[in-house]
Amino acid sequence: MAITANDPKRKTWLEIPTKTDFPIQNIPFGVFLTRDDIITIGTRIGDYAIDLGALHQLGYFDGIPLTDDIFLQDTLNDFIADGRKTWRAVRNRIAEIFDEKNETLKNNEDHRKTVLFTLDEIEMQLPVQVGDYTDFYSSKEHATNVGEMFRGKENALMPNWLHVPVAYHGRSSSIIPSGIPVHRPQGQKMPHGADTPIFGPSRKVDFELEMAFITTAGNPIGEPISVEDAEEYIFGMVLFNDWSARDIQKWEYVPLGPFLAKNFASSVSPWIVTLDALEPFRTEGPKPVIETLPYLKSSGKKTFDIQLEVAIQPENSEETVLTHSNFKYLYWNMSQQLAHHTINGCPVNSGDMMGSGTISGSKPDSFGSMLELSWNGKKTIKLKDGSDRKFIEDNDTVIMRGHCENKNVRIGFGEVSTKLLPVFDFKKK
Amino acid sequence: MAITANDPKRKTWLEIPTKTDFPIQNIPFGVFLTRDDIITIGTRIGDYAIDLGALHQLGYFDGIPLTDDIFLQDTLNDFIADGRKTWRAVRNRIAEIFDEKNETLKNNEDHRKTVLFTLDEIEMQLPVQVGDYTDFYSSKEHATNVGEMFRGKENALMPNWLHVPVAYHGRSSSIIPSGIPVHRPQGQKMPHGADTPIFGPSRKVDFELEMAFITTAGNPIGEPISVEDAEEYIFGMVLFNDWSARDIQKWEYVPLGPFLAKNFASSVSPWIVTLDALEPFRTEGPKPVIETLPYLKSSGKKTFDIQLEVAIQPENSEETVLTHSNFKYLYWNMSQQLAHHTINGCPVNSGDMMGSGTISGSKPDSFGSMLELSWNGKKTIKLKDGSDRKFIEDNDTVIMRGHCENKNVRIGFGEVSTKLLPVFDFKKK
Repeated sequence: MAITANDPKRKTWLEIPTKTDFPIQNIPFGVFLTRDDIITIGTRIGDYAIDLGALHQLGYFDGIPLTDDIFLQDTLNDFIADGRKTWRAVRNRIAEIFDEKNETLKNNEDHRKTVLFTLDEIEMQLPVQVGDYTDFYSSKEHATNVGEMFRGKENALMPNWLHVPVAYHGRSSSIIPSGIPVHRPQGQKMPHGADTPIFGPSRKVDFELEMAFITTAGNPIGEPISVEDAEEYIFGMVLFNDWSARDIQKWEYVPLGPFLAKNFASSVSPWIVTLDALEPFRTEGPKPVIETLPYLKSSGKKTFDIQLEVAIQPENSEETVLTHSNFKYLYWNMSQQLAHHTINGCPVNSGDMMGSGTISGSKPDSFGSMLELSWNGKKTIKLKDGSDRKFIEDNDTVIMRGHCENKNVRIGFGEVSTKLLPVFDFKKK
Repeated sequence: MAITANDPKRKTWLEIPTKTDFPIQNIPFGVFLTRDDIITIGTRIGDYAIDLGALHQLGYFDGIPLTDDIFLQDTLNDFIADGRKTWRAVRNRIAEIFDEKNETLKNNEDHRKTVLFTLDEIEMQLPVQVGDYTDFYSSKEHATNVGEMFRGKENALMPNWLHVPVAYHGRSSSIIPSGIPVHRPQGQKMPHGADTPIFGPSRKVDFELEMAFITTAGNPIGEPISVEDAEEYIFGMVLFNDWSARDIQKWEYVPLGPFLAKNFASSVSPWIVTLDALEPFRTEGPKPVIETLPYLKSSGKKTFDIQLEVAIQPENSEETVLTHSNFKYLYWNMSQQLAHHTINGCPVNSGDMMGSGTISGSKPDSFGSMLELSWNGKKTIKLKDGSDRKFIEDNDTVIMRGHCENKNVRIGFGEVSTKLLPVFDFKKK
């Protein structure tokens, strides 16, 4: 089935801003709560949220094999499990419904009132129930920076890094959508030079600029997915802020990896942009530095040119953009990640989320975390309001944005925006 | 509400073996598929599986506030979310229904036929949909053994171990019930003395003798659970075999912890024994070696005296018991684990599973893994059939059993039994 939804010449009859992440060529999927307190699956064009459950009930998806309640769900998991053919047919149909040449919905005021919402009328939810969340560590620049800080320049990159798409399991229960604030975590830290840990608020709360992909039901237990087949199992992508507490991490992570330093929260952008929508922005990733094992060999354009930025907005103040990076910098692509993840037979389900790991570029203004930007607190970052940062302060809002752009079209992810609240106060409970 | 179900003097009108893990004082919870292909929640007394969905429809739970379909589910998650008061009321009622003094069900042949199944008529399922799975590392003996093997006697225990209940996130999607076989995983390994990794079947497949506890819906994101409150959020326990591939683990685990070496499978016993049923077997754990931080301080009998064993049964041969251990050996108890897990605000949901980590005792015949029993392949273990083992061979079945016993009653977990199949054969797909 051709991806007719991607036609760059198509215009919509909806009034939308000239520069938007969500032109009619995007058609992402999300879940929102309406003004009537109903949860539904929807899409977004310009600054309109569109209720796909209502559209389906009104017959606009007739001819596509869909169950009656496929969009009347509080997560996208069942829709995603229906597979690529369904996603593609639905995106194509949505493009037709809102095409400026199609007057059916345009001229039906009752239907329009049922289906269309402005953004201030809805509340975005987490788009999937995350079964398992895996976080990769696939930026060579990030792994090298972190290694250099903690082990010195000579031993910066671990011996396994160029062979293994290193990853670890994260916590699904603390993945939250954009807009939900996060409390500064408390935990154990070992002060420099001390021989006993202390307990208290993390003083090194950090963001990690990541993206995550969401899978459909993949392999049964025991059966690997190949690099060649992997994209069949990838529904789409979101922006991903993998909150981290560097001081807690440093004390706890040997030998089994990060735990409480990470699992207090990870924030995602609420609209899942499909791999189909990103098709025009395919590109090749970095050339392998050494030969990879056969099960990880990848050829062709298996990654995407997605421009990324992170800003900090202090309370009652303007934001400062701290860094610009790009998804295409990653050494290991999503197909290699998924092939590696399943080579031992580990099963992947609909709604699983796989983070990329922090996406850093080679230059200091493209680093994807405060740990790297402030070089573990050795440098100070000036904000526009005159204040300094080494890590994230209470009541700062961290905003990540991402989009693809060529001369024809801009496909974006919107943003993931999260405020860091002070430590949870038991006395107020 | 008193736990009347635990009355050691109670006898049942069901005919049950004199020595069973499942006397009328146990009343565990599980999920099974019946001869009519219906999935239901059930309990077990002796060698009878009891359909709680059918019992509820027949009115046997009248007076207990339960939704109509609470037992007509394919997981226990909703029942567990109902909380301790409900679990206790249901267990007490089941004890009354099957008490030898109660003739209602006993004398109703139609009801008995609807409700009672022999074990060969049913197929046990995974008892919960695991939202998140966390694996602790709470045996000081195990951590010391592993440390000694890989880092030498001087640096055996990591500096953080006595302060932090070390843990990492595992994979929920590969948790399977007893009886489901597992394929030997493939992956990257770095041969001794080589400088490039090779790909192939793991040659060091191992079991880990663990137990896991299952939580109910706990804390909202941002709010910790205290050591004192923790048991309110623990529904019950299962036996847990955390399959491991030691050669894959050794190459991949630095710096983010084990990943493919663990996530190919973890096997659980299918009946969840409630914390209530274990009440008579409360005991104190080991005394802390150093003072713990205040948020981890624990007093009183917060662990349980559960005798554990592991056997290997080669194909078409008799089994050999390799080790005897005890849950009470663990340095960190479940309440400390849960308090630590949530101290940073990480939310816990109904159906989450928390593994103990390998449970080793101080003596070589109480070690909880082949890694320790064979001292990473340096020693050979003789089986009864004359064959040798260093790790697990193809077509071996690994069987773990656990029970508590005093002069009045024996409360057991049954077993988790898993066969290791050869590497998955793509040609046969």
